[in-house]
Amino acid sequence: MSFEDRLTQMGLELPLPPKPVATYVPAVQAGELLFLSGVLPFRDGKLTLAGKLGQDLTVEQGYEESRVALLNALAIVRSHLGTLDRVKQVVRLVGHVASADGFVQQPAVINGASDLLVKLFGEAGRHARVAVGAVQLPLNAPVELELILQVSS
Amino acid sequence: MSFEDRLTQMGLELPLPPKPVATYVPAVQAGELLFLSGVLPFRDGKLTLAGKLGQDLTVEQGYEESRVALLNALAIVRSHLGTLDRVKQVVRLVGHVASADGFVQQPAVINGASDLLVKLFGEAGRHARVAVGAVQLPLNAPVELELILQVSS
Amino acid sequence: MSFEDRLTQMGLELPLPPKPVATYVPAVQAGELLFLSGVLPFRDGKLTLAGKLGQDLTVEQGYEESRVALLNALAIVRSHLGTLDRVKQVVRLVGHVASADGFVQQPAVINGASDLLVKLFGEAGRHARVAVGAVQLPLNAPVELELILQVSS
Repeated sequence: MSFEDRLTQMGLELPLPPKPVATYVPAVQAGELLFLSGVLPFRDGKLTLAGKLGQDLTVEQGYEESRVALLNALAIVRSHLGTLDRVKQVVRLVGHVASADGFVQQPAVINGASDLLVKLFGEAGRHARVAVGAVQLPLNAPVELELILQVSS
Repeated sequence: MSFEDRLTQMGLELPLPPKPVATYVPAVQAGELLFLSGVLPFRDGKLTLAGKLGQDLTVEQGYEESRVALLNALAIVRSHLGTLDRVKQVVRLVGHVASADGFVQQPAVINGASDLLVKLFGEAGRHARVAVGAVQLPLNAPVELELILQVSS
Repeated sequence: MSFEDRLTQMGLELPLPPKPVATYVPAVQAGELLFLSGVLPFRDGKLTLAGKLGQDLTVEQGYEESRVALLNALAIVRSHLGTLDRVKQVVRLVGHVASADGFVQQPAVINGASDLLVKLFGEAGRHARVAVGAVQLPLNAPVELELILQVSS
């Protein structure tokens, strides 16, 4: 089954790709590697939730936010490649989690994005991953994701 | 116009490339990709400003600091490639902003680097970007930039 | 001398490669580039030390922790490639240091990893590097390392 079909079967719809608010672009491809700009959990042009883990949001909410942020990343990928079916391999995901002092469950939060990648892309979705805590993220977002993918030309 | 000519026309002079203070090197090339070490806003071997955004420095000062840090990155690029004219595409910029609790305008700060990249390199300067908040950066620097470029061989 | 021989000569033994606790994998290769998942200072399945620099741990302890984390990264590299001797070049190291407010010696901490890379791999170990402060890291780890290597096929 194609990745686009699986997305449909999973009942997922991608948002409009987020528009950079400055002089950068959503994604740049160099050779087979596609580097994405940082994505936040946007829906309909707004953050779905704001605040820090360990203070304003539960781990469950963080998990869902990182899933929403990933949908924004996928929207960029589709917009850049025309279709998700040109994804060859998800290479690396870095997940930044806005963290109150003492919050150390960043991996459980970023699993929201990791789990969705693997459900959607199967083996091609199994990625290297880094999860870190940030004192603050843009717009008071709870999570921000960086993604590198290998794509077929 | 060549990138070197445009730099001159813009009245910009690059600083001496910063010297790593340890066992790493300023840049490593792998295939067409050039990975730079993190750069801080140095001029004449010293930070131009120190401190955190949202506490010690204004957004305007942060914008200028990220511009100064980018000049250090360009100095590394020129030193590595011989000339900026071998830059094919700026691929990705990650901007770390030393942020006091509650400061969420990291993108406005990193625009100082992004705007300069696009003014200098035009289309080739339009990069993927990530802006995040750090609780502290080396030497109490307000910003630190990571850069990946695609270069012609 | 091969890198494996040098490792033995240095009296270093690699730990078991850390097992990801979620749906990601320890490393993904795309072309000649090998991207590693974030590594923490694990030994025998546990963090060797926990806490923040500038509060719970000295710079000397942080240096040693970043060295231990690097051994975990090397264990992943060997497990993925079969042998360290297929490493062509260490490309880039990003070191995240769990930092209390006011701690700005992240580079001195990450030198533990950088120094070991150069001792082991010589010229091939001279990498681009980024050192940043994180408000918190997974499991309350003091350091977390991200590594990209160029490998021979």
